[in-house]
Amino acid sequence: MATKRLLKYSLLSTVGIGSFLAGSYYEKNNNSIVCKPCLPIFGTVSAAVPFTTSPQTTSSNASRISQIMKYGFPGMDHVRSFDDFVLSYDRKTRVAHWVFEHLTAENTKKNDGVDRALCDFKPDESIHSYFRSENSDYKRSGYDRGHLAAAGNHKGHQKHCDQTFYLSNMAPQVGVGFNRDSWNRLERYVRKLTNTYPNVYCCTGPLYLPKKEGDGKKYVRYEVIGEKNVAVPTHFFKVLVMETSDGHLEMESFVMPNQVIDNEVPLTSFQVPPESIERAAGLLFFDNVSRSKISKINGKKQ
Amino acid sequence: MATKRLLKYSLLSTVGIGSFLAGSYYEKNNNSIVCKPCLPIFGTVSAAVPFTTSPQTTSSNASRISQIMKYGFPGMDHVRSFDDFVLSYDRKTRVAHWVFEHLTAENTKKNDGVDRALCDFKPDESIHSYFRSENSDYKRSGYDRGHLAAAGNHKGHQKHCDQTFYLSNMAPQVGVGFNRDSWNRLERYVRKLTNTYPNVYCCTGPLYLPKKEGDGKKYVRYEVIGEKNVAVPTHFFKVLVMETSDGHLEMESFVMPNQVIDNEVPLTSFQVPPESIERAAGLLFFDNVSRSKISKINGKKQ
Repeated sequence: MATKRLLKYSLLSTVGIGSFLAGSYYEKNNNSIVCKPCLPIFGTVSAAVPFTTSPQTTSSNASRISQIMKYGFPGMDHVRSFDDFVLSYDRKTRVAHWVFEHLTAENTKKNDGVDRALCDFKPDESIHSYFRSENSDYKRSGYDRGHLAAAGNHKGHQKHCDQTFYLSNMAPQVGVGFNRDSWNRLERYVRKLTNTYPNVYCCTGPLYLPKKEGDGKKYVRYEVIGEKNVAVPTHFFKVLVMETSDGHLEMESFVMPNQVIDNEVPLTSFQVPPESIERAAGLLFFDNVSRSKISKINGKKQ
Repeated sequence: MATKRLLKYSLLSTVGIGSFLAGSYYEKNNNSIVCKPCLPIFGTVSAAVPFTTSPQTTSSNASRISQIMKYGFPGMDHVRSFDDFVLSYDRKTRVAHWVFEHLTAENTKKNDGVDRALCDFKPDESIHSYFRSENSDYKRSGYDRGHLAAAGNHKGHQKHCDQTFYLSNMAPQVGVGFNRDSWNRLERYVRKLTNTYPNVYCCTGPLYLPKKEGDGKKYVRYEVIGEKNVAVPTHFFKVLVMETSDGHLEMESFVMPNQVIDNEVPLTSFQVPPESIERAAGLLFFDNVSRSKISKINGKKQ
């Protein structure tokens, strides 16, 4: 009976009484498959459906997606294509696996008509209700709704900026000292790279890293917030590929712990080998290009 | 600097020195897409490739797969089709998301020529080396290599039984008191259902359930073992759909904690509403059939 009690206790927070049949409607009724040239076949039927609140996929945004994803998809689980970024949603953690952006000096330039204050954080209705994070999950959690694709990268059009505010593009982040400070510093660094490189490809996502505990064993441990149990990542990564004007590729990859970080710590101290992130995240980055073709990784000639 | 040390520490267990470029070969060179009628499009290019050590997909095993998956795929991440079961692999945890079987009195009958002692636990070479669990990960971990698709369900052919021993079909399970006792009791119960129902569809997988800790917050916490950090699930589920001989459908769903369980605890005490498992696992079970068409769930008329 102790076993039974333990079981009920463990399940308690994941059982949603009264919502037994709710939610299966959406994904069942959006099962058209779109196979376009240059676009890989998406991970789920619903993933191939253009974002619900957006207009139908046009050949121009299909070509924007293949531009963003030029060097390969890190994984194919529940891929959602927005107008100016692409994400893969993890239904188990309610946080994206990864978000992909293609940045240039031109497309990161702020258009005077675009106002971030007009953007609202909103649930992503394309995600099944069981797995969709809500504003209420973040409320009083102590965490910011932290952008994965940074709003500051999408200020050329109001709609692009608006779309970065879908909660599928958010993760619970420590506010002061992380989201509003060092993580923002990293985002600004990435944006500034577009002054040096004509094309910057940026993949951002969460990590849930193991730690050795007192008993000598390794454990993954992370908080979950709200009714939907949205995971609070222990760390976040950014993996970048930059095209140089003379046709070379360079790579940089960063991991930052989701905690207060001293603003004086240089960004280079967060650089790690990209394969360490791949192993931890279960993803393969820029898989369409052989690593031997990359001339520099984290500033070091290969 | 403290931040830097912490970061390096957290990453330590996931960084594999010297394996930087290893492993990307396989998935890049197996990118043919197979689209067959009745089969959904798989989640990744490699998922659509027939299992490497098996012969090429034939029309007979393609039809077996659509038979097994008759009521829908719970998810589409890295799907692998074996001859008598189908699995979806989670590259982040190195444990399957789910394993699907179709059981009948006929196909679960032991063929005298089939010997479980001839089967070897072996790594699944179809999984990228970064994410592939190895026998060495389990060694001295204290956990059994516990089958998700039970070997005992596939004793009609030696090859079917052999394939259940791929490590992609294993999860770290507590041995005495769980894998060898109550979990086995549940597996035998499922097999016995084929005496009552002409067709039994069985989906099995791991859960990583949150628990409220002393600070009043909810945390997911699980051990990871070996160099590859194979996750030790906190619980396992089985979700079943049975076809009755008069054409009705019944459903049963179980969650068991991955710990010593008293053999006297009745199996019915592990029954939970299927949607509680869906929410926790990030999956949708038997999604091709409306729940309103299911006449009984966990023994209760709907």
